[in-house]
Amino acid sequence: MAGKPIVGRLALIGIGLIGSSLARAVKRGGLAGEIVCTARSARSRETALRLGIVDRVESDPAAAVAGADLVVLCTPLQSYEAITKSIAGALAPGAILSDVGSVKQHVLDSLGPLLPEGVHLVPGHPIAGTEESGPEAGFAELFDNRWCVLTPAEDCAPEALAKVSALWEAVGSRVEVMDARHHDRALALTSHLPHLIAYNIVGTASDLEAVTAQEVIKYSAGGFRDFTRIAASDPTMWRDVFLTNREAVLEVLSRFTEDLFALQRAIRWGDGDALFDLFTRTRAIRRQIVEAGQETAAPDFGRPHGDGGADE
Amino acid sequence: MAGKPIVGRLALIGIGLIGSSLARAVKRGGLAGEIVCTARSARSRETALRLGIVDRVESDPAAAVAGADLVVLCTPLQSYEAITKSIAGALAPGAILSDVGSVKQHVLDSLGPLLPEGVHLVPGHPIAGTEESGPEAGFAELFDNRWCVLTPAEDCAPEALAKVSALWEAVGSRVEVMDARHHDRALALTSHLPHLIAYNIVGTASDLEAVTAQEVIKYSAGGFRDFTRIAASDPTMWRDVFLTNREAVLEVLSRFTEDLFALQRAIRWGDGDALFDLFTRTRAIRRQIVEAGQETAAPDFGRPHGDGGADE
Repeated sequence: MAGKPIVGRLALIGIGLIGSSLARAVKRGGLAGEIVCTARSARSRETALRLGIVDRVESDPAAAVAGADLVVLCTPLQSYEAITKSIAGALAPGAILSDVGSVKQHVLDSLGPLLPEGVHLVPGHPIAGTEESGPEAGFAELFDNRWCVLTPAEDCAPEALAKVSALWEAVGSRVEVMDARHHDRALALTSHLPHLIAYNIVGTASDLEAVTAQEVIKYSAGGFRDFTRIAASDPTMWRDVFLTNREAVLEVLSRFTEDLFALQRAIRWGDGDALFDLFTRTRAIRRQIVEAGQETAAPDFGRPHGDGGADE
Repeated sequence: MAGKPIVGRLALIGIGLIGSSLARAVKRGGLAGEIVCTARSARSRETALRLGIVDRVESDPAAAVAGADLVVLCTPLQSYEAITKSIAGALAPGAILSDVGSVKQHVLDSLGPLLPEGVHLVPGHPIAGTEESGPEAGFAELFDNRWCVLTPAEDCAPEALAKVSALWEAVGSRVEVMDARHHDRALALTSHLPHLIAYNIVGTASDLEAVTAQEVIKYSAGGFRDFTRIAASDPTMWRDVFLTNREAVLEVLSRFTEDLFALQRAIRWGDGDALFDLFTRTRAIRRQIVEAGQETAAPDFGRPHGDGGADE
């Protein structure tokens, strides 16, 4: 499966779920001459080496990026600025700085001014993941058939964009280039709002006095358990998403709340037709998502049934 | 696997996802001497016969229940009253009337007064399902290790309760007997609110002008697609749930909204600690649900990865 490397030296800053999946996919495809990674914790660095998913680890980010053609930030969004300040001087002329964060305008605004002349900034966002975290949670197939959005600044060098784009395609992604602000609005809807709602409903359930925690767990198969998956996502990563995409999140949230009040009113007044119309309308979209290859066609997400509950 | 029948003649009113799963599980276990079903559409009745999951079909509900020991309503909640009126005269003395609806106090209140002397009412709710509908969507393993809640009236005959309980246990369920009003409050939280929220967010996404429908579909793997599963559930069934459990749903909904406003405020004012605290607290509950055998331990619900998207 190994082809011609797309990148000479790839430096990954952070080796969690996304960083380690990228490392695995790049290694599988022979897409980089060398993969170097750094991570704040010694344990993560040792794990990365032990798993054989990187060629070298460095405790100092500046040492990790020295001589790298492509540097990818794979840490929570709010850590980017300090990291970029600490590596800016070590970036080679012509190097590309990219990332995998879920918010993009913030990356352009905050990192652009910190980079030396001749270093290219190509922010990226692979729309893929699971609720797990850490270097051992990654896998090479994570990006297969998932979209990766790139949001270069207007004056981005075409060859830098082309290289990052080629790498994501080579690890299995479908690449889309778009305006950072538009990305932030679209993802506020398809990713940030769903996470917020999931975190919120799980919080509400934990706090309700009328229903015990044991009952919430026992009867969770009625629908609640679905929400607990994304509400188990990494807290630091998601805190940073909401703090760096505030305006777009507040905007879609206010639409959600407005719609929810209309639904509440329909329930209060017994407007069965309004409920039926909405519930019918929402049915079609899942089929379209399955047809677009972004979801399994199996009922119940393909969850196992009939093994007495000792799944996996 | 066939044992001693628990029921002589079992009559199922409605043969959709739940009714047909119950038929399959009862047949698998040899738990009834005869399974008769009725359904409003001739097509469903023919399908049930063709699949071999029932022994006999009747177009007239009264004919279906004649001589039955146990009659189970497996239709949307708002159809119960008319059906019960039409079968009441045909119910044998000592027969049990049960159901599988997601709301229980409404069943006691509306059906109790319609039953002739000597017919027992044992409302039930198997907390199991998928987003699919119809007789072909059912499967015998649906109830394995899922809870089934029974909410008999205070004066219910113990032997009637025992028979219904035994049947659900024999099809793989774990049975819990509780007060109908408490059931309705607990399920408003663990099932009805999640469905309402899911329907609402999918509705909001369909209506937002700033993001195209194509973008919603393409970037749904960021979290949104999880919600589309339960938002694809049967519209009639769910309309009836909200209309018959209004007070409890409005109560948990107001708690959800209150909590959501607090979260909104934390985002607006950049209160990262409040976000981090909630996001950390919600992480534990999924692990408990997995440990209780109510959810798969596999990441991402065990969705397939790496097959290029042509799942299943």
